[in-house]
Amino acid sequence: MNGYRDLRVALLGCGSVGAQTARLILEHGDELAARIGARLTLAGIAVRDVDAKRDVELPRELFTTDAERLVQGADIVIELMGGIEPAKSLILKALEGGADVVTANKALIAAHGPELADAAEQVGAQLSYEAAVAAAIPILRPLRESLAGDQITRVLGIVNGSTNYILDRMDRFGDSAEDAARVASELGFLEADPTLDVEGYDAAQKATILASIAFHTEVPVETVHREGITAITAEQIEAARSAGFVIKLLAIAERITSSDGVEGVSARVYPALIRRDHPLAAVHEGKNAVFVEAEAAGELMFYGAGAGGSETASAVLGDLVSAARRHIAGGPGIPGSLHAELPVLPVGEVTTAYQIMLEVRDQPGVLAAIAGILAEHGVSAASVEQTVLESHGGERDGRATLVIGTHQAREADLAATVDALRSADAVHAVTSVLRLEGNA
Amino acid sequence: MNGYRDLRVALLGCGSVGAQTARLILEHGDELAARIGARLTLAGIAVRDVDAKRDVELPRELFTTDAERLVQGADIVIELMGGIEPAKSLILKALEGGADVVTANKALIAAHGPELADAAEQVGAQLSYEAAVAAAIPILRPLRESLAGDQITRVLGIVNGSTNYILDRMDRFGDSAEDAARVASELGFLEADPTLDVEGYDAAQKATILASIAFHTEVPVETVHREGITAITAEQIEAARSAGFVIKLLAIAERITSSDGVEGVSARVYPALIRRDHPLAAVHEGKNAVFVEAEAAGELMFYGAGAGGSETASAVLGDLVSAARRHIAGGPGIPGSLHAELPVLPVGEVTTAYQIMLEVRDQPGVLAAIAGILAEHGVSAASVEQTVLESHGGERDGRATLVIGTHQAREADLAATVDALRSADAVHAVTSVLRLEGNA
Repeated sequence: MNGYRDLRVALLGCGSVGAQTARLILEHGDELAARIGARLTLAGIAVRDVDAKRDVELPRELFTTDAERLVQGADIVIELMGGIEPAKSLILKALEGGADVVTANKALIAAHGPELADAAEQVGAQLSYEAAVAAAIPILRPLRESLAGDQITRVLGIVNGSTNYILDRMDRFGDSAEDAARVASELGFLEADPTLDVEGYDAAQKATILASIAFHTEVPVETVHREGITAITAEQIEAARSAGFVIKLLAIAERITSSDGVEGVSARVYPALIRRDHPLAAVHEGKNAVFVEAEAAGELMFYGAGAGGSETASAVLGDLVSAARRHIAGGPGIPGSLHAELPVLPVGEVTTAYQIMLEVRDQPGVLAAIAGILAEHGVSAASVEQTVLESHGGERDGRATLVIGTHQAREADLAATVDALRSADAVHAVTSVLRLEGNA
Repeated sequence: MNGYRDLRVALLGCGSVGAQTARLILEHGDELAARIGARLTLAGIAVRDVDAKRDVELPRELFTTDAERLVQGADIVIELMGGIEPAKSLILKALEGGADVVTANKALIAAHGPELADAAEQVGAQLSYEAAVAAAIPILRPLRESLAGDQITRVLGIVNGSTNYILDRMDRFGDSAEDAARVASELGFLEADPTLDVEGYDAAQKATILASIAFHTEVPVETVHREGITAITAEQIEAARSAGFVIKLLAIAERITSSDGVEGVSARVYPALIRRDHPLAAVHEGKNAVFVEAEAAGELMFYGAGAGGSETASAVLGDLVSAARRHIAGGPGIPGSLHAELPVLPVGEVTTAYQIMLEVRDQPGVLAAIAGILAEHGVSAASVEQTVLESHGGERDGRATLVIGTHQAREADLAATVDALRSADAVHAVTSVLRLEGNA
């Protein structure tokens, strides 16, 4: 047709992203052929149940339960099944056969990315997974290609839409954590088991992928320091707001130097305070954004939908068209280089700043005692704000709230400071500890 | 060295971007070699005056005034001279010799992009110009590659830092247009001749480039409808603010259908009202951002520095690394396809909404007369707000201010409505007409 060469595309999986991917390939066939210089032929869609209900009506004859057979003879394989197996084996089989592979499988890439990349490089095939991080937002290709001549220093990502939705509701509507989670669940922002989202596992997978691409280094997902949002309270959100901050769950990939001079990489996930005039603070609802700091380029931000069938399919199609163009042009795929081999440093080596809220005795000497604890750990205060608590009758009840904003210090020293404060006589309770990020 | 193959890079021009580009190539040679799999050798830097003062200290022996000779035998040519000639002839010569070309020359690409792209395609070379639009921000590659499987419907760009700086100061500090321009000039945001910026010529060049890539269509720069910011007053900015808007100079590339059903493209530049909660409203100072709407991906935004030596050099280096990888891998460059060949439609065919401010007689029947004029042109009002003007003594002086927000309508009808209002008896003066964009 039109003299175009055919490229056989095998689709594995037909959930909401798979169905939209199939629809786009079929509906925009002519336009895609013109852009690529070859026609994409959807050879088949491998599913577990041929008769299952799909989001999109698709020709029945495309469906098969025999994924292995479908992969054979494909020029490009799109894996949208999710999970580790059989996705991994099928991808390896496809690569061995010389096919390019496009996947949106963040769990698989986070766990086995280097092994799959090796397999691709062996045969000169292209493995791409733009959709695995921040769905529709082009972020991996810009990191890998547009910033290929620059030195990335830090990546701060809002990469989990569910938790951003919850935190955003708490911030903008004053919801309790429970109410916000209920609304998020009703709107389909949360999975039946929300643990992957709210405990930060999903964001940690994305931090792994971002760190490895930004720093050309293997960053095992087990090395990602991870804290979720389950401990965040409405009181913390409110206190953050009145101090000019917003709390966001961030996936952070950063190039750091340890206290003994080792150059390395940190990948971590935690809820952190962001100044309200930082571009990341304006990322509302389920949107995602990735803020990148690079030596020459300065600050960049990439913003858009972080989930959704057609949104994710857009990223899959982008990878598909690239793979197809490469297939036509010849020449091997561009491997994701891990040549830098930087060590992954523990979170204790990170430099950050804490905001610590304490309940203390309202009596002379308390402030001096606390200042002493900070000084002992080499931590200095950037701001201290004390509020004397009054009982309902208006009388002082002998307690005060203290909010300490620290200067930048090593995470290990900050954490030790908080431990020391917890056991100090003058301190009733440490009520909140949050890191401050994006201070550039 | 390290067994890497050498790639000869010729640099044409050594202004602030050229000097930073040379610095990055020289300083990061080992890291770049590891990323590319080949060593970039800076073969020379062609300049007009070898002895001129540079931003960066560079080895004197690199400089030459013989650009033609430098281009011969280069694997990759970086053109950062600016202007049409001799840049164009040198690029054509480089392409004819099979070299890949990287340029940041927006004027040249806007005027002769298709001719240069043809020349590159003839020999299978790569022509890239990421730095020509929004400097450090990766936008052309995402449009061309990441969104290659999607249908882009609209691109709204803040792509001129100088005018954004001026409008932002007027909005955030209440500056007059003159004061804001003076500060912008003092800070180096404005050229000695600011016409290119404030009259929208620079933004129009970028609109041409964005439209042609987004819609695979040749969009001559002469077809871009262009209005600058010189007529924008502090009163308009203030009125916009109190109505919940901000005024931004936008470069817009949009896929539209004409009133008689022709599918085509619109490229235009004008100052427009944007809702304050739109992501583009938060783009302050000299920053740039490009907001993209696509059928599957939904809304995306790309944000960052729109100017600066090292920032622009980062984009140049990204293109350079890509070209180098392609050179090593073999296979032709990916041509920027103009296959869609959509007609460029006149601005009259655009659908938009107007906000019109009028001074009218404060007497019965005026509102009816004005409503009649709107209806005659098929334009309907979304909102009408009337303020009776009082003289200093507090008495009504027979005049009122009327602010009409229209529903979406065809630009030609809206413009005709404004003309009719101007000559209506009831109307003293039309004091402001602004379009409302980014209403999604």
